[in-house]
Amino acid sequence: MKTVTSRDNPFYKELKALAASSQARRKAGRTLLDGVHLCQSWLDLRGAPAHCIVSEEALHNPEVADIVERCEALRAHVTVLPDALFGALSQVEHGVNLLFLVETPAPGQPAAMTVSAVLLDGVQDPGNVGSILRSAGAAGITQVFCSPGTAFCWSPKVLRAAMGAHFVLEIFENVDLGALIEQSNIPVLAMSGYAQQKLYEVDLRGPVAWLLGHEGQGVGPELMAMATHQVVIPHGGQVESLNVAAAAAICFFEQLRQQGS
Amino acid sequence: MKTVTSRDNPFYKELKALAASSQARRKAGRTLLDGVHLCQSWLDLRGAPAHCIVSEEALHNPEVADIVERCEALRAHVTVLPDALFGALSQVEHGVNLLFLVETPAPGQPAAMTVSAVLLDGVQDPGNVGSILRSAGAAGITQVFCSPGTAFCWSPKVLRAAMGAHFVLEIFENVDLGALIEQSNIPVLAMSGYAQQKLYEVDLRGPVAWLLGHEGQGVGPELMAMATHQVVIPHGGQVESLNVAAAAAICFFEQLRQQGS
Repeated sequence: MKTVTSRDNPFYKELKALAASSQARRKAGRTLLDGVHLCQSWLDLRGAPAHCIVSEEALHNPEVADIVERCEALRAHVTVLPDALFGALSQVEHGVNLLFLVETPAPGQPAAMTVSAVLLDGVQDPGNVGSILRSAGAAGITQVFCSPGTAFCWSPKVLRAAMGAHFVLEIFENVDLGALIEQSNIPVLAMSGYAQQKLYEVDLRGPVAWLLGHEGQGVGPELMAMATHQVVIPHGGQVESLNVAAAAAICFFEQLRQQGS
Repeated sequence: MKTVTSRDNPFYKELKALAASSQARRKAGRTLLDGVHLCQSWLDLRGAPAHCIVSEEALHNPEVADIVERCEALRAHVTVLPDALFGALSQVEHGVNLLFLVETPAPGQPAAMTVSAVLLDGVQDPGNVGSILRSAGAAGITQVFCSPGTAFCWSPKVLRAAMGAHFVLEIFENVDLGALIEQSNIPVLAMSGYAQQKLYEVDLRGPVAWLLGHEGQGVGPELMAMATHQVVIPHGGQVESLNVAAAAAICFFEQLRQQGS
């Protein structure tokens, strides 16, 4: 365990840049996990972080102390910061002052889809992307492919909203969804409020790819035309459309329901 | 159509207070609807606003001009503000500079639940509450009862996330959910990750009340014990829990699926 007390320390400066800038995180291929739940989940599912950073005060928190102990047993670096220095690193108000620095997983993209997957075409809100990852992870879907216009999945907001789902998923970013759909061996279901085919009429017992689009515009017309199915969730009320993360949850769990029966 | 150009104008000051403070909105029993979609929905579903407020520049936007015309036809007050004054009123970046001032609907609470309803027990995130209202409205559920600890439904963030669902719902706030459940003639289904009874095993063809709890702690133990059913959404993956708005969408649309078949 090391202690850093100077704002001019190069490692501290690196952390500050990663905490402040999405561009810095993308460029470095590293990101920060904030708080007990995300750090615990990383340890459980992915093992040692590159680095564990903790404030002096947080060391007195038993959950944090346990995580630090597990990091040391795995020979991960642990750095302690005075509370004043730590404050500039966390976006969580009243958080516990615990961060993991991790290499952003960048799995090699499979040549074709063979298992159920989620395709995100320009979903922009980090809370929506996080909620979709969380629902996918809970439904047992393991692969997520994101178009270039979709929110960066390893940003702090998406990580917080997904509550650790990232660590059980393979997430592919900046994907050419058109090429992926073209080579797909499994049905690609584009969700649309204007489609005719009802979700409950589609056989979802095998693997499918769920194609979900931008909050306002939906799936782009080119991808929509390439999908094997255009599918609607039938409504019962006067409200015309669903939040994209709500629609995703309904789809993933309808598939799970059909698979279970 | 009136024009206000002074920051000291009493009506402008009232608007600024309503825009800035949730407490001011609650106290006044009035709220602001921001942007074309919410204002159009209000006109379609609830009629005239108490007041329409628009910036000089926004009058050149054809959608805004149409809304202003409809307001004038309904003899609603319309006030035009210079763009600089309007800027202090809107929370939406790059918005269209259109606001409705409306009386916050405060419907009288029914003595007992007779139709399907949503009961929110301390759901705190405005985005989650808004998404739940939107899904309820899309599923044809018409009544929503909120505990005192739930986010204020008529706040700008909840209104934005619900996309106009408020205007087709009856929303009851600061409700004693315990008393409501005690007098309920319809099944009350408390959602819980720890329950044994699976969602798909419950007969949802008649009216039910969906009881949803706080993002972290779930439904409180007292209300949980009072519910007629404790119900789980079966999962298929390693992620242990769903976002509350995702869970709500799955429940409401499973009910709609059962009712349709």
